[in-house]
Amino acid sequence: MVQCAKQFLHIMSGYFPNVSKIEFEGPDSDNPLAFRHYNPDELVAGKSMKNHLRFGAAYWHCMRNPLGDPFGVGTALMPWDDGSESLDNALVRVPVFFEFLEKSRIDYYCFHDRDVSPEGATWAETHANLERVTQELKGAQEGSGKKLLWGTACLFAHPRYAQGAATAPSADVFAYAASQVKHALEATHALGGAGYVFWGGREGYASLINTDMKRELDHLAQFLHMAVDHARKIGFTGQFYIEPKPREPSTHQYDSDAAACLNFLREYDLLDHLKLNIETNHAELAGHTMEHELDVASAAGALGSIDANRGDQLIGWDTDQFPTNIYLCANIMLRVLKMNGGQGFTTGGLNFDAKRRRESHLPEDLFHAHVGGMDAFARGLKIAARIVEDGRFDEFVKARYASFDSGVGAEIESGATDLNALNSYALGIEPPVLDSGRQEMLENLLNDYL
Amino acid sequence: MVQCAKQFLHIMSGYFPNVSKIEFEGPDSDNPLAFRHYNPDELVAGKSMKNHLRFGAAYWHCMRNPLGDPFGVGTALMPWDDGSESLDNALVRVPVFFEFLEKSRIDYYCFHDRDVSPEGATWAETHANLERVTQELKGAQEGSGKKLLWGTACLFAHPRYAQGAATAPSADVFAYAASQVKHALEATHALGGAGYVFWGGREGYASLINTDMKRELDHLAQFLHMAVDHARKIGFTGQFYIEPKPREPSTHQYDSDAAACLNFLREYDLLDHLKLNIETNHAELAGHTMEHELDVASAAGALGSIDANRGDQLIGWDTDQFPTNIYLCANIMLRVLKMNGGQGFTTGGLNFDAKRRRESHLPEDLFHAHVGGMDAFARGLKIAARIVEDGRFDEFVKARYASFDSGVGAEIESGATDLNALNSYALGIEPPVLDSGRQEMLENLLNDYL
Amino acid sequence: MVQCAKQFLHIMSGYFPNVSKIEFEGPDSDNPLAFRHYNPDELVAGKSMKNHLRFGAAYWHCMRNPLGDPFGVGTALMPWDDGSESLDNALVRVPVFFEFLEKSRIDYYCFHDRDVSPEGATWAETHANLERVTQELKGAQEGSGKKLLWGTACLFAHPRYAQGAATAPSADVFAYAASQVKHALEATHALGGAGYVFWGGREGYASLINTDMKRELDHLAQFLHMAVDHARKIGFTGQFYIEPKPREPSTHQYDSDAAACLNFLREYDLLDHLKLNIETNHAELAGHTMEHELDVASAAGALGSIDANRGDQLIGWDTDQFPTNIYLCANIMLRVLKMNGGQGFTTGGLNFDAKRRRESHLPEDLFHAHVGGMDAFARGLKIAARIVEDGRFDEFVKARYASFDSGVGAEIESGATDLNALNSYALGIEPPVLDSGRQEMLENLLNDYL
Amino acid sequence: MVQCAKQFLHIMSGYFPNVSKIEFEGPDSDNPLAFRHYNPDELVAGKSMKNHLRFGAAYWHCMRNPLGDPFGVGTALMPWDDGSESLDNALVRVPVFFEFLEKSRIDYYCFHDRDVSPEGATWAETHANLERVTQELKGAQEGSGKKLLWGTACLFAHPRYAQGAATAPSADVFAYAASQVKHALEATHALGGAGYVFWGGREGYASLINTDMKRELDHLAQFLHMAVDHARKIGFTGQFYIEPKPREPSTHQYDSDAAACLNFLREYDLLDHLKLNIETNHAELAGHTMEHELDVASAAGALGSIDANRGDQLIGWDTDQFPTNIYLCANIMLRVLKMNGGQGFTTGGLNFDAKRRRESHLPEDLFHAHVGGMDAFARGLKIAARIVEDGRFDEFVKARYASFDSGVGAEIESGATDLNALNSYALGIEPPVLDSGRQEMLENLLNDYL
Repeated sequence: MVQCAKQFLHIMSGYFPNVSKIEFEGPDSDNPLAFRHYNPDELVAGKSMKNHLRFGAAYWHCMRNPLGDPFGVGTALMPWDDGSESLDNALVRVPVFFEFLEKSRIDYYCFHDRDVSPEGATWAETHANLERVTQELKGAQEGSGKKLLWGTACLFAHPRYAQGAATAPSADVFAYAASQVKHALEATHALGGAGYVFWGGREGYASLINTDMKRELDHLAQFLHMAVDHARKIGFTGQFYIEPKPREPSTHQYDSDAAACLNFLREYDLLDHLKLNIETNHAELAGHTMEHELDVASAAGALGSIDANRGDQLIGWDTDQFPTNIYLCANIMLRVLKMNGGQGFTTGGLNFDAKRRRESHLPEDLFHAHVGGMDAFARGLKIAARIVEDGRFDEFVKARYASFDSGVGAEIESGATDLNALNSYALGIEPPVLDSGRQEMLENLLNDYL
Repeated sequence: MVQCAKQFLHIMSGYFPNVSKIEFEGPDSDNPLAFRHYNPDELVAGKSMKNHLRFGAAYWHCMRNPLGDPFGVGTALMPWDDGSESLDNALVRVPVFFEFLEKSRIDYYCFHDRDVSPEGATWAETHANLERVTQELKGAQEGSGKKLLWGTACLFAHPRYAQGAATAPSADVFAYAASQVKHALEATHALGGAGYVFWGGREGYASLINTDMKRELDHLAQFLHMAVDHARKIGFTGQFYIEPKPREPSTHQYDSDAAACLNFLREYDLLDHLKLNIETNHAELAGHTMEHELDVASAAGALGSIDANRGDQLIGWDTDQFPTNIYLCANIMLRVLKMNGGQGFTTGGLNFDAKRRRESHLPEDLFHAHVGGMDAFARGLKIAARIVEDGRFDEFVKARYASFDSGVGAEIESGATDLNALNSYALGIEPPVLDSGRQEMLENLLNDYL
Repeated sequence: MVQCAKQFLHIMSGYFPNVSKIEFEGPDSDNPLAFRHYNPDELVAGKSMKNHLRFGAAYWHCMRNPLGDPFGVGTALMPWDDGSESLDNALVRVPVFFEFLEKSRIDYYCFHDRDVSPEGATWAETHANLERVTQELKGAQEGSGKKLLWGTACLFAHPRYAQGAATAPSADVFAYAASQVKHALEATHALGGAGYVFWGGREGYASLINTDMKRELDHLAQFLHMAVDHARKIGFTGQFYIEPKPREPSTHQYDSDAAACLNFLREYDLLDHLKLNIETNHAELAGHTMEHELDVASAAGALGSIDANRGDQLIGWDTDQFPTNIYLCANIMLRVLKMNGGQGFTTGGLNFDAKRRRESHLPEDLFHAHVGGMDAFARGLKIAARIVEDGRFDEFVKARYASFDSGVGAEIESGATDLNALNSYALGIEPPVLDSGRQEMLENLLNDYL
Repeated sequence: MVQCAKQFLHIMSGYFPNVSKIEFEGPDSDNPLAFRHYNPDELVAGKSMKNHLRFGAAYWHCMRNPLGDPFGVGTALMPWDDGSESLDNALVRVPVFFEFLEKSRIDYYCFHDRDVSPEGATWAETHANLERVTQELKGAQEGSGKKLLWGTACLFAHPRYAQGAATAPSADVFAYAASQVKHALEATHALGGAGYVFWGGREGYASLINTDMKRELDHLAQFLHMAVDHARKIGFTGQFYIEPKPREPSTHQYDSDAAACLNFLREYDLLDHLKLNIETNHAELAGHTMEHELDVASAAGALGSIDANRGDQLIGWDTDQFPTNIYLCANIMLRVLKMNGGQGFTTGGLNFDAKRRRESHLPEDLFHAHVGGMDAFARGLKIAARIVEDGRFDEFVKARYASFDSGVGAEIESGATDLNALNSYALGIEPPVLDSGRQEMLENLLNDYL
C-alpha cells in the first residue's frame, strides 16, 4: 500500500518535484540549481569533462543517511521512505536514487550491500534480499545508462562486527564476513561494477590491551587473498581498492594511511591486486594533505580512485563535507590528469563520499550539495588543465633536480658510486650553494590560474 | 688558557661540584638526587636492571642544547663551555660529559658527529676534527667503561642541508652528505658503537609544489644502500636504524611513522639491513601511541632501539620531555621484555632523547631530569616483569582468539579454505555472539600492578 | 505484561544477577568486582571518602546508551529494556538504575529529562511523562537514600533543536526550549537536586556563513536569566552550572572552554548565578589540560562540579572513557581538596560522564567500569591528601613568588608604583637572575606520592 | 667602516639591486614581481585600496629573521648585515628596511624594541640604543612618508624573561619589563605609532606544577594598568592591543584566544583600554577559524587590528606563512569592511606577520612573498566588496532570524517574557518546523564571487 502510494506520487511529479534536471547555464547564472562550470560534454584537454571526472554518488549518503550524529537523531526529510528495514522499502528507494542521478547528471554510483538491501531474519534471507535488490538496480541501470563505479560490503555496522570482521577475534565472525563479501562481490560483478572497495571500518583495535595485532593482520591478509581468488573464479575483472583512514570508528584502523596500506600490501604479497581509494577527509585525519596521499599512492603505481569530499581540519572526526574548495579540487585534478601515464581515471572516479550538514534537511539540499561539488571539480579540472598545458610548474621542478641528470648525480641515481667515491668528490668541489626553493613565488603562480 | 683553567676547576671539584655520584637509597628516600627504584645490579626476571634498561644519554641534549626555542635564546648555564665552535671547546666538553655519565650511572651514550666535533674551515678540516674528537672519546670510554649505543650524522642543521641531504635537489649536497656519513660511520665503528641511526631531519619536503617525491625517495634508498655497503667494507657489524617522525623540521618527513618506514624499506629492499628506533614523542606527533609504534615495528621483526622521552599531546611539536609517566614506562618495558624472543634489547637501549625545560637552566637540573627518568623506567621494568610473570594479560588475549586455534579458524589461518566454503559454513551455524572485550576490566587490572 | 515479567525477574535475582553489592576488599584482592581502594566510610584528611568524592552515575550512559557510534548500531545488552520510547519502558528502567546504584555504592545520580522520560504525542504529554517519572524517581530515592546531584534538559537530540535551542534561529524553538527547561528545573527541584546544569549541545554554530553570533549569544543570555528568575520563583536554591565544551556536536559551541564561559557570564551579568561543571574530555578537546580548566574556574571562584571521565588525546572527539589514570585523578582531587576554602565539594560531585567501550556490551561491564573509576579516584584522593599534608609543593610555589611578598614586589601587587618608578628601580639593581623552575624535580616528587 | 661600505653600495644600486619598485600590471602580467590585483589608489567601495588594506611590514621577519628553526641555523642571505648585535649594525638596517618598504609599496611597519635596537652592556645603554635608533627611524619615516602601525616590546627572547615578564615569579624581572615597556611606549609615541601591542610571549606557564596562575594574572593586570596610565601621562593616544595565542613558546599562554583575552580584560576592568590584534595562525592553533576570532572580537567591540598570515592546519606550531588563500583573504576583508560601523580599519591594519620558508633564502624572496600576500588581499577586498554590495548573504542571515523581529521573539529579545509565559505559548502552537540552514547553497554562492 505504502509502496503503491509512493509509485503514484512518482508518476505525478517525481520524488524531487521541486527540482528539474540540472542544466549548464554558465558562470553568470544566478540559479542556484544550475551548473556554472560543469558542462558534461565540453572538451578539456581533448576529453569530455564527464569522462575526466567520472562523478559518482554514494547510495549511503544520498538514500540512507538520516543526518543524525552522536548527540541527535536524524533530521533528513525522506518522504518516500517508511523508515522500516524491509525489503519493500529497499525496493522503493531504487527509483528515487536513479531519479536523483538523472536530475543531477551524475553518471556513476557506489554502494555498500547493506545500504541497498537489509539484513533478513536469517543469513540466507539476507543474501536473498541482496540478490533481489541487485536485480532491481540492474534494471534501473539499464533504463538510465547509469553505471556502478564500485561496490563494497558493510562490515562495520552490525553488532557482530563490533570487534572487527576479517580481524574479529571470532572465527565465526570471520566466516560471516567472508560470506558477506562473497555475495557483495557477486552483486558488484552482476552490476558490471568497475571496482570493489575494502574499507576496514572495524579492522583495527579499540585498545592494544586486549589485542593481538599481528594475528589480526595475518587474518586480514588471508581475507583479501580469498577475495582476490574468488574474483578470479567468478570472472570479476574490476579493480580492488583499499581505502585508508586512521581512526573512527576504531581507535586505530590498520589501513591508517596510504603508506600503512602499501606496507601491508607489500608484506602480504597483495600489491598486484589492490590499489588505493583515497579520501580527502581521511587523509587529513591521518595528518596528511590530500595531495600527499595521492602522491604516495601514485609513486607506488597504486592510485586507483578518489572519494571526493572535504573535512574540517579543526575538527577531529570525519565531517564528510562537500568539496567546494577550488584549491583542493585543482590539486586533485592535477594528479588525476597525470594518473596512468596521462590517461586519468581508468576504473576509478570521483565518488562524492559527502553528506549535507544536519541542518540542511530538505531533499533539495541534496542537489545544492552535489551541484556545488561538481562545479568546484569542473573548475579544478580546467585550472589543472591550464597548469599542465603551460608547464611552468613542471619545468621548475625538472630544473630543480637537474644536477641528477648527468655527472655525479646520474651516477648516484644509477648506483654507480659509493661513499668513498663521493667523499673524494666532495673534498674536491666548492662547498655547495642551494638555489631558492621559491615556494612563495610558486604559490603566487598557482593563484594566477584561479 | 681557558682550557687550562677549566681542567684545574675539574681537578678541584669536578664540573658538577654540587652533585655526587647518584646512589640507590630506596623508595623512602627524600633525597631528590638519589635513586628510589633504579638499583643497577638488582636482578629483575633473572637479569640485572642495567642490562634490561641499557640507559643512554644524548650528547646533544646534555652538552649542546642551550635550551633556546624559536622565541628565545638559550638559558642553560654551562660554565665549562666558552661558547665557541672551536675544536678546543669540543675537547673540553668530553670530560664534562663523562663526569655526567659517571655520576648519573648511565652506561651508554649517543651522538651526532656535529655534537661532538665542529665544522672546520674546509671540508677536510671538518673530517679531521671528528677524527681528533673520536680519539678523545675513545680514551674517555676506556677510562670509564662507558659505551657508545649509537652514532649518527647531523644532516639537518647546516644551511647546505636546508632542502634535504640524501633527498636534496642538489647532487653536490648529496655528495657532501655521503661524505659526512662515511666519516660518522667510521667514527662509530672506531668507538665500538652498537648501532648507527638515520634520522631524516630534512629528508622530506616543505611543500609538494616544488618537490619530486618519487625521485627524492629513490635517492634516499641509494644513500642507505651505500651506507650498508660501506659498513660491510669497513667491518662494522652494528645495527642500522631508521627513526620515524612525521614532521618538524620538515612539513612532511618521509620516515613519518613505523609503517611508512617499513613500507619504504620493503619497497627498496632494505628491510634486512635496518631496524627502527622508536621515540615516544615522534609516535604521538604521528597520531599514534608509543605502544602502537612498538607493536608495528615488532610485528615486522624490526624493533631495534628506543628513544626514551615523552611529549605533550596537547602540543604540536617535539617537546622532548623526560619520561616520568609510569604507565608509559611500564608499557614500553612490557614490549622490551618480549623483544627478540624474550631476550630484550640486544643492540638497542633506552636513549634519553629528552631535554630539561628552558626554565630549568642549572647544571644540576640535568641530574634531576635523568634520575627521574631512570627511576620511572625502573618502576616500569618491575611492573612489566610482574605482569609477564603473572600472565593474566597474555592468557586473556590468547583465550580471546582461541577460535582460530582449531576448526574453521585454523583453516582460515592456514589458507585451507575459501569464500565459498566459508559461506556454506556461515549458513550452517548459529549467528555468532561476541564475548565482551573487557577493556575496562583490563585497564583496572593494569592499575593493580602499579 | 512485559513489565510484569521483568518485575518477576527482579524479585528472583535482580536485574544484574551476576553482580553482588561491591565490597571493599583492600589492595591485595584479586576479585575484579571488589574495591581495592574505595572504602566509603574511611576517613581521609578528616572526612569520609564518600563525602570527599560524592560519586554520581549518569542515567544516560548507564540506562540509555546503546553503545552505538556513527558507523554502527548499539551493542549493549539491556534485557530489561523493550527498546520502545514508551512511558512504561521508562518506568521499568528506574528500579534497574537504582539497583545499579545500590550494588555499585554510588550515592548520587544525574539525568537529562529525556533520559528518564520520553517525548509524548503532544507537548503536554511530554511534560506529563516527566512528572510521572519524577514521582517514580522520588520514590526510588526515598527507598534507597540515593540523591540527585543535578538535573538538566536535553536540548540537542530532537530535530527541533538541530539549529540550537536558546540560540535557534526560530523564536518558537526558543519557546519550546524554555518550556522544557521550566519542567526540567521543576523536576530537579522536586527531587531535591543539588544543582542544575546547562550543557549547550547545540548552542553554537555549524558555520558562520549563515549565523549571527552576537544575536544568538544575546538570546542565550536572556534564556539563562529567565532560568535563574524561575528558580527564585519556585524556591530552587541549588547551584546552576555551565559545562564547557569546544565542539561536537556543533562545529563550534559557545561554551567552548572555561574562559569562554566566564567571558560570557561576565558580559551578561550572570557570574553570580552560574558556576562551571568541568569535564576532562571536554577540557582536552579545547586544547587544555583538566588541571588548567579547574584552575581557571577556581581562580574566578566558579568551580562547581566535575564530570569525571577521560578522553584519548590522539582522538578528536569525546570518547568519554572511564577515568583510570592515577595522575589525572590525583591532580583533580588536589583541586577538589582546595575548593571552597578547603571544604571540597559543597553542591558538586564527581559524576561519571563515561561510557563503556562498544565492545564491552555486557551488563557487568557497567560495574567493571564504575568500580575501576571509583578506585582510581580513591587512590587519587589519598595521594592528594598526602601531598597537601606534606606541603612540599605548596612551599615550593610560595617560595617561588616570595619577591612579591615585600618591597617592590608588594608595591606592584598593591598598585603603589608605576612605570617611571619601576624604570628607576630597574636602572638601580643588578640584572635579575632567575632561580630554576625545577619542573623535572617536582615531576619526580609527584611520582614519589604514587 | 663597514657601515660606510654599505652606504656606498646603497648609493650604487640599493640593497635589493635585482628588484625595482613593484608596479601594478594587471591580472594578465606574467612578471612575478608585479602586482596583478593591488592597485594602491584604485577605489573599491568608495575608498582607495591602500586605505582599506593599510598593509604593514614586520621589522622582525623582514630584517631580523635568519630563517632558522629548532633543527637548523639561519639560511637567509642579508649581505648588508654583519651579524653583530651592535648599534652600528642596527643603524645599517634602517635604510635597508625603508628601501624594502618603498619598493614593495607597503605603507606601514611594526616592530619590537629589540628588533630595531640591541641590548647594551648596561640597562641604561639598552635604553639609549633604542633612543638612537628611534631617531633614525623617525628620519626615515619623514623621508619616505611611511608610518608606524604599532610598536611593542620584546619581553620573551632574553633569558631574564624565561619565566615570564609581567608574570615572572621575580619582582625584579617585572620591574625590568616595566622599564622596557616605558621606553618602547615612548619610542612608539615619538614615531607617531597608531597603536601599541602586547603579545604575551612568555606570559603563561610551562607547567602548573610550579605556578600560581591567579597571582600571575593579577600581576599582568597591574602591568597593563600601569602601561595605560603611562600612556595618558605622556599623551600617547594610540590604541592598545592584546594579541591572542594559545601556546608557543609557553605550554599555555594566558592570552590564549579572543574569549580568554576578553574574559581577562573584563575581570580586571581593562576592556575600555585594549582591543585585540587577531592573527590567523594563532586563531587556528587555538582551534578556531580566523573568522571566528574576528567575530568574537567584533561582537565585543574589540576588534582592533590584524596580523596577516596563514598557518598550516596539519602542523602544530606557528608557521607564519604568507596569506595567499583567497578564501581566507575574502573572509577577513568581509569583517574589515564591517568594522567600526562600516569604516573599516581606523587605527589598525594588515600587518604581515609572516616569514618566507627557510628554503627561500634570497633577498628577492622577501618581495615574492609580500607581493603575493598583497595581491591575495587585494582580491579578497574586491570579493568582499562585491558580496557586501550584493547583499545576498546579509539578506539570508537577516531572514533566518526574522522570527525574533516581532511577536514572541521580540519579547524574548527585550526580556519581556519568562519561562511560564513561554511554556504557555509553546503549549499553544504547532510543533516548530525549521527551515534548512542551506550551508551548502551558501558555500556554492561564495564560490561564485571568486
